[in-house]
Amino acid sequence: MLPALTMGDPAGIGPELTIAAWRMLRESGEAFFWIGDPSLVADEIPVRIIGNAGEAAAVFENALPVMPLSLPGPVRAGHPESRFADAIIASIGKATALALSGEASAVVTNPISKIVLREAGFGFPGHTEFLAALCDVPGEEIMMLASPRLRVVPVTVHVGLRAAMDMLNVSRIVHVGATLHRALQRDFGIAAPRIAVAGLNPHAGEGGVMGSEEQETIAPAIARMRAMGIDATGPWPPDTLFTDLARPGYDAALCMYHDQALIPLKTLDMATGVNVTLGLPIVRTSPDHGTAFGIAGKGEADVTSLLSALRLAGELGHARAHAKEKNG
Amino acid sequence: MLPALTMGDPAGIGPELTIAAWRMLRESGEAFFWIGDPSLVADEIPVRIIGNAGEAAAVFENALPVMPLSLPGPVRAGHPESRFADAIIASIGKATALALSGEASAVVTNPISKIVLREAGFGFPGHTEFLAALCDVPGEEIMMLASPRLRVVPVTVHVGLRAAMDMLNVSRIVHVGATLHRALQRDFGIAAPRIAVAGLNPHAGEGGVMGSEEQETIAPAIARMRAMGIDATGPWPPDTLFTDLARPGYDAALCMYHDQALIPLKTLDMATGVNVTLGLPIVRTSPDHGTAFGIAGKGEADVTSLLSALRLAGELGHARAHAKEKNG
Repeated sequence: MLPALTMGDPAGIGPELTIAAWRMLRESGEAFFWIGDPSLVADEIPVRIIGNAGEAAAVFENALPVMPLSLPGPVRAGHPESRFADAIIASIGKATALALSGEASAVVTNPISKIVLREAGFGFPGHTEFLAALCDVPGEEIMMLASPRLRVVPVTVHVGLRAAMDMLNVSRIVHVGATLHRALQRDFGIAAPRIAVAGLNPHAGEGGVMGSEEQETIAPAIARMRAMGIDATGPWPPDTLFTDLARPGYDAALCMYHDQALIPLKTLDMATGVNVTLGLPIVRTSPDHGTAFGIAGKGEADVTSLLSALRLAGELGHARAHAKEKNG
Repeated sequence: MLPALTMGDPAGIGPELTIAAWRMLRESGEAFFWIGDPSLVADEIPVRIIGNAGEAAAVFENALPVMPLSLPGPVRAGHPESRFADAIIASIGKATALALSGEASAVVTNPISKIVLREAGFGFPGHTEFLAALCDVPGEEIMMLASPRLRVVPVTVHVGLRAAMDMLNVSRIVHVGATLHRALQRDFGIAAPRIAVAGLNPHAGEGGVMGSEEQETIAPAIARMRAMGIDATGPWPPDTLFTDLARPGYDAALCMYHDQALIPLKTLDMATGVNVTLGLPIVRTSPDHGTAFGIAGKGEADVTSLLSALRLAGELGHARAHAKEKNG
């Protein structure tokens, strides 16, 4: 079983990244297949149209395996058009269906533009929410960012900082922590995961002198997780949690807001960060960047994050299939 | 003129760091003098008692120049005592007086314990506030953290995150930005400093979708700074502001809260971060760690941050003296 890579917005950097990824991975054998319009890539690399996912592995060394979708017209790089929305959405839907049915090991998504899709009537704020709905687990999606040196999971994602603080409560932290614990065990193959829980305030509140959330919310959430058998520690002072000395002490950091998680990750590993969606019945990763319409088609796009996303999807998909086999 | 290094808490790691710093710097000629009890260091290294700061430079190569203070009894490393508070405070007072009178080029402070000093009736929350009072500019102190790869200044420091958000307003941001601009010019020798201003919310609010502080407070503050001739830009999305690609684009980042500034700095440069107090009539730096009573006297303390603080104090003191000469 191989990961399915979606088309993403055809006017963004997705097509050129897909081409570059196939060129890089064909020799290492870290295969994948792509669901998109073959005309986007066929001028650059050999393409093999496949009818089902099982045919992909055998052809990958010699051609990009493509499960074809047709766009309603020619694409100009850097010029997104809402008439492509149906095909963009169909690619995501097809990839998810294949992962749910066990024909694909994972879904890897090329970047999409919310603005383009919203114009076409797409009602989801982004990829992740759409995938959760397709998997029939709306609201269960949790974002992890993973890089070679750090894994972070923020308790809240795309809300303002004030709203994020208002949304902090014991059950939300415990829910995210428990989902993270399961994912580290099942998908990352870590038998006894160590989760470091960050404080919210400077110095983790310094005993209540600088904010009470650590005492009122975060510490009780840690206690509840520990009672569930989860090796959660903290609340740790946020500013020293991500240093070279501290990181080897845990497998993932549970963070109290978006930037507490994303600042250290991107500061350390901008190019190699991979977005992993936890809480879904399928494995899903994506590169940690957008459509980059401004440089699309110019050959300037950096394929590192997509490569990392494809490789991690392969590993996680393999681990999850293995876990399923073992547990029957 | 040389920097004056204070004693700090004699039961902490200050004495051993002072010894290590003299050993490291005696050959490079980056001289300083120390204000403390000679018995704390005299067993380990040669010491020369000096009567005034002017004598320090000539002796530094062969001995640590010490402006003597007497402690009221023997010190046990790792066991702080409030009876030492008067001498701890006197060392800071003396160093500051010498910097104000132009006999010392800068003040470098060894770590103190707020708890020890509070027991002895010391009414200041920390070093920095005490120094501002001694310099007769109470409330003007602004914290910068500087490392080889990044300089950050948070608009608020030791308050909880909610309180920090409540304290954000245009005039505070402009005041901190203007102080930073002057310091970069005068002390860091940057003729046309570039200041990157961080947003508060994820993605800097994404046009108001995730918080309104960027539009209501931060952007107006940037506009006002620009009207004052300050090259301030932003508000920038916080998570991508500190990457390898972004950092060369500015000389200092103006941050909206403590951890937004300190997470990236400590993640990048834990050991070499130096605390610089801006807004004072004197140059003041300090290592970016505490008294570390738990390891005091065990030879485990890392001198890197104090070395960085002494070196930076030397540079900044030199630049400021030069600027004074030039401007008469």
